[in-house]
Amino acid sequence: MISFDNDYNRGAHPALLDALVRTNMEPCTGYGFDPYCESAKEKIRAACGCPDAQITFAVGGTQTNSLVIRAMLHEYEGVVAADSGHISQHEAGAVEGTGHKVLQVPGEDGKIRADVLKAFLDRFFGDDNHDHMVFPGMVYISYPTETGSLYTKAELTALHEICKSYHLPLFLDGARLGYGLESPACDMTMADIAEHTDVFYIGGTKVGALIGEAIVFTKNNMPAHFMTTVKRHGALLAKGRVLGVQFDTLFTDDLYFKISRHAMEMAGKLKDILVKTGCRIFMESPTNQQFIIIENEKMKKLSETIAFSFWEAYDENHTVIRFVTSWATAEEELTALEAALTALNH
Amino acid sequence: MISFDNDYNRGAHPALLDALVRTNMEPCTGYGFDPYCESAKEKIRAACGCPDAQITFAVGGTQTNSLVIRAMLHEYEGVVAADSGHISQHEAGAVEGTGHKVLQVPGEDGKIRADVLKAFLDRFFGDDNHDHMVFPGMVYISYPTETGSLYTKAELTALHEICKSYHLPLFLDGARLGYGLESPACDMTMADIAEHTDVFYIGGTKVGALIGEAIVFTKNNMPAHFMTTVKRHGALLAKGRVLGVQFDTLFTDDLYFKISRHAMEMAGKLKDILVKTGCRIFMESPTNQQFIIIENEKMKKLSETIAFSFWEAYDENHTVIRFVTSWATAEEELTALEAALTALNH
Amino acid sequence: MISFDNDYNRGAHPALLDALVRTNMEPCTGYGFDPYCESAKEKIRAACGCPDAQITFAVGGTQTNSLVIRAMLHEYEGVVAADSGHISQHEAGAVEGTGHKVLQVPGEDGKIRADVLKAFLDRFFGDDNHDHMVFPGMVYISYPTETGSLYTKAELTALHEICKSYHLPLFLDGARLGYGLESPACDMTMADIAEHTDVFYIGGTKVGALIGEAIVFTKNNMPAHFMTTVKRHGALLAKGRVLGVQFDTLFTDDLYFKISRHAMEMAGKLKDILVKTGCRIFMESPTNQQFIIIENEKMKKLSETIAFSFWEAYDENHTVIRFVTSWATAEEELTALEAALTALNH
Amino acid sequence: MISFDNDYNRGAHPALLDALVRTNMEPCTGYGFDPYCESAKEKIRAACGCPDAQITFAVGGTQTNSLVIRAMLHEYEGVVAADSGHISQHEAGAVEGTGHKVLQVPGEDGKIRADVLKAFLDRFFGDDNHDHMVFPGMVYISYPTETGSLYTKAELTALHEICKSYHLPLFLDGARLGYGLESPACDMTMADIAEHTDVFYIGGTKVGALIGEAIVFTKNNMPAHFMTTVKRHGALLAKGRVLGVQFDTLFTDDLYFKISRHAMEMAGKLKDILVKTGCRIFMESPTNQQFIIIENEKMKKLSETIAFSFWEAYDENHTVIRFVTSWATAEEELTALEAALTALNH
Repeated sequence: MISFDNDYNRGAHPALLDALVRTNMEPCTGYGFDPYCESAKEKIRAACGCPDAQITFAVGGTQTNSLVIRAMLHEYEGVVAADSGHISQHEAGAVEGTGHKVLQVPGEDGKIRADVLKAFLDRFFGDDNHDHMVFPGMVYISYPTETGSLYTKAELTALHEICKSYHLPLFLDGARLGYGLESPACDMTMADIAEHTDVFYIGGTKVGALIGEAIVFTKNNMPAHFMTTVKRHGALLAKGRVLGVQFDTLFTDDLYFKISRHAMEMAGKLKDILVKTGCRIFMESPTNQQFIIIENEKMKKLSETIAFSFWEAYDENHTVIRFVTSWATAEEELTALEAALTALNH
Repeated sequence: MISFDNDYNRGAHPALLDALVRTNMEPCTGYGFDPYCESAKEKIRAACGCPDAQITFAVGGTQTNSLVIRAMLHEYEGVVAADSGHISQHEAGAVEGTGHKVLQVPGEDGKIRADVLKAFLDRFFGDDNHDHMVFPGMVYISYPTETGSLYTKAELTALHEICKSYHLPLFLDGARLGYGLESPACDMTMADIAEHTDVFYIGGTKVGALIGEAIVFTKNNMPAHFMTTVKRHGALLAKGRVLGVQFDTLFTDDLYFKISRHAMEMAGKLKDILVKTGCRIFMESPTNQQFIIIENEKMKKLSETIAFSFWEAYDENHTVIRFVTSWATAEEELTALEAALTALNH
Repeated sequence: MISFDNDYNRGAHPALLDALVRTNMEPCTGYGFDPYCESAKEKIRAACGCPDAQITFAVGGTQTNSLVIRAMLHEYEGVVAADSGHISQHEAGAVEGTGHKVLQVPGEDGKIRADVLKAFLDRFFGDDNHDHMVFPGMVYISYPTETGSLYTKAELTALHEICKSYHLPLFLDGARLGYGLESPACDMTMADIAEHTDVFYIGGTKVGALIGEAIVFTKNNMPAHFMTTVKRHGALLAKGRVLGVQFDTLFTDDLYFKISRHAMEMAGKLKDILVKTGCRIFMESPTNQQFIIIENEKMKKLSETIAFSFWEAYDENHTVIRFVTSWATAEEELTALEAALTALNH
Repeated sequence: MISFDNDYNRGAHPALLDALVRTNMEPCTGYGFDPYCESAKEKIRAACGCPDAQITFAVGGTQTNSLVIRAMLHEYEGVVAADSGHISQHEAGAVEGTGHKVLQVPGEDGKIRADVLKAFLDRFFGDDNHDHMVFPGMVYISYPTETGSLYTKAELTALHEICKSYHLPLFLDGARLGYGLESPACDMTMADIAEHTDVFYIGGTKVGALIGEAIVFTKNNMPAHFMTTVKRHGALLAKGRVLGVQFDTLFTDDLYFKISRHAMEMAGKLKDILVKTGCRIFMESPTNQQFIIIENEKMKKLSETIAFSFWEAYDENHTVIRFVTSWATAEEELTALEAALTALNH
């Protein structure tokens, strides 16, 4: 079976496993106070061009999102997100579980438009009854979005300006951050992300790590006693080294960016193959997720040799399916996919 | 520096890392639906003598405790625990963060006595005003306890009988379960634990794994849609394989028990060394944590070469410190400790 | 100033105050165990044609909604509501404050259509990833809705059928229940409401009481130890008699229905006046709230003598405003309104 | 039946009912923006000698306590309370329901001693592991306490000094505040209470009101957007006037203090009767609750004519029972009680 179903179907990039093996028997202080966490943070600060960034590691996107949100919101506040946002739909109410509402605004191509945000906020604060409503307390976006789209630098800057004018922190979910930054369509660096957000996280789980996400507070705004909230959230690892060693490796010699670039090169070739073999593209997507519309019978046949993921029903006879590349995608896998699609479509 | 400060200062048992390396590039289904999770569950069921046990993996003790508790309690219920229990003191209010009170009862040597529990429950249900109070909805114990003590089989059975008579599930926190089961003072097997509890977890983080705990529901009582609660709790790993591979290895050829036994042998020798070198024992402890009372000046001197952990102030001039062995403790470390203590005390 | 701004701008119907005065110095057991609560429940059961109904009193709509919802949902569930629903918009996140998501579906005229609900539920349970999503655990509707519209008996029955087929309780928010039932457009009795819902509440605050809502569980489905959840929610009055005496009076000699009918007669006359005086009707509304579109300058002028409420901006020069009648509306007030509108429009 | 069972068994002081009747048909703005709320606040500010006090009304003690606590604590904080505190025992986990732990310290006679609090806080902040623990975020005391005891001015001042030195707000639960202030044992005024706390509430439910408590923030420290938290907590009455009118009356011509003084005079006479008739006093209590130890058989006999409340079992043959006076207690009731006790004991 050739796997294009998602970007978490393999373990870790071998360099990370090597580092875990190499450092395995060194005694380290627990709870993130080990030298690998320290070194990783230093390297991430450099990569962000943000020497004062405050960094904490956590495990997994849902945990990270609800942790950051609960720590930053006041009791009476909620978090603004696109209706298609991961926290709106696919995190099983983790945010609500901490007592806070997700305030959904209509997304466009997975993104929140600055004017839509402004209209929402103007309307809220202009409403005579807004004391009876959940206050917007921060804004959540994902980059790339859930469908793989990207904010341009101009779009992100505009969004951040609106947030600043309303004193709302902007939080960027970077579960697939590397794939976004290495997309040919991207006009930003990690330093731009750091500049135009208040907090973001660098996804490890989907970009080469076994587990792990790095939360970066960029404006000297880590909430007071954040470590206690991390603990309380069940997100504090006794063996913090597991995250430190991995992120230290990912941010040594630009490994994070190199393996992301590889995934994007594979995505480019994947796109070519889809077009060349006559697949019907569902929507343009500039990152590592590609979507096609396929007849149900062909889908069934394809699934015998290729793992892909179901996206949504298109009509009675067609389905939207998703192919995903990652740091682990090999050329031979693309070759096998091309052969399978060619056989299917001709 | 020789490390006796805790049982999570090293990475993973090499066999677990080997297995992670060996399986690393195999594509696996995410979220725990991989074959390694399945195999690990099967082996754990066998080790528990409980063929119908329902098993889920999570990451870390605090996460696991608050997850199990929130999933099992009704809205109006709290969890009974010893005042010294980990959830009572050292989990930063994780349980309360999910809306539930920890109902503290006085512990004795870290344990809840069956008669104390019975008296507490009788008093609650006998109180005319108990509708104005938090209902006891389950009972939490740890094995070994936070100070390393152990319930005897008779004590556990008695506690479980009280729980059953009040229809309360008994939850056993086994963060250090292996060290308890392999203690010379232990008169139980893992099957006994499974029989006399309703849910327990097998600690991996402190017993050879990088991360990971295995939650075992023993009475066909996994809460409905538990996976969704796991997700909502931020405890569902995309790469569930990381936990599956490790637990599969730990429960192959009794590795979990063998490495626990090693830790206990080291603890036995540690105890001998403490006595032989004239240390003043703070309290008897049958598992892998040993406590001495030491003069503050000596403590300072010792800390130059040996890592131990501060337990509590004893008096103005003395401190209680803790030495901990684990699966990773080497004979040479004990030799070095003996030399250091001999030099200190003579 | 003549008041048409809302239906809670006066105190209580005089008969309720009389009863409070009359019973004032009788010692009563607290917390709802007084004879007035008992008598009120008996009368409400009769009015509902539901001899086994389980009834509890609470204070205010937001409190009641979040109380019922937290008590009925499981940990992993949320409540389905129209996007215009009171719990979706105007209760400051009270439901989310108890850990549960409000799952918004598009409303039509403030109502959830049965086919829209069915499609939502089919899609949820048909989604391969629904374990990563908040489970629908109950359905919330309001009657009359926030804009005063009414479900027909056929619509309510159809909705309840869908709920039953998915084993979801249907909860009806009856903050203005009396005004709905006494509307000329209504084809249901309170017994029909009881039959075709699983729990509903009879609003007192807006229908003649100082404070108070009566929660009615109609299917022998009051959650276990509901009183403790009421207490925990801060909704248990020491002087439960205050609610008991009022509801006992409201349900003696059909007072609740009579005063509701009065409000609806006033609403009918109000509607006639609005038409007669040439106001531009914003939308048809069959209950005690009537909406017009008015020029901003005229609105300003009108506000000098008449209290109404701002609903929403219509365009740059016009506003939608709301007039509300209630049990307390007097003929002279209508006369004064007619004069004011006549002067304004001619 | 003569009622000494509690201080909420009658309705409201007649002057409050009169005011409700008198103002009943005046249209008022909702949600606490009526002139009666405004006037009541002004009078309370004067009574507190605190012209800048920020005041909000709520309904009932449990609601008020959990509301104030959730609004003032940060995510990672809990509230310190005596183990006998109402929030520790008898509010069904309302505080935990908002996500926060009640940090219990041993009380003495229902009170927290300043040195006990200091030791607790010193120990917490001195603990190397306190980042893994719930931070103390405020201190809760009750005045009078649950057993009727009173802090002296010196004790309250000392407690407040400790709180200030740790930057923790001190919250005083004054469910029976009037009875405390009018006790012969009291050496404080309401202004002293205001000065030496950061927030407190003036209990209405037990001191002459139908419902209602006045929350007083004394240090210009009302949490931002508190009204929204009140709404979200289900504590915002549409008819805020019901609270405004009652508190306005209570604080006109010192009525609150006068009716409290009456209750205390009745309590003094009650105490004399208990002694004179040979009852065995359980503990000295300076306010409106008096406790005796009584033989079970006599208790049964007494309960035929007198309503009192069960406090706790004393031994196999004796019970502690409580007699309570209030603003509503009449001389004739005391006469009847004396007759009953005389008959019983002689």
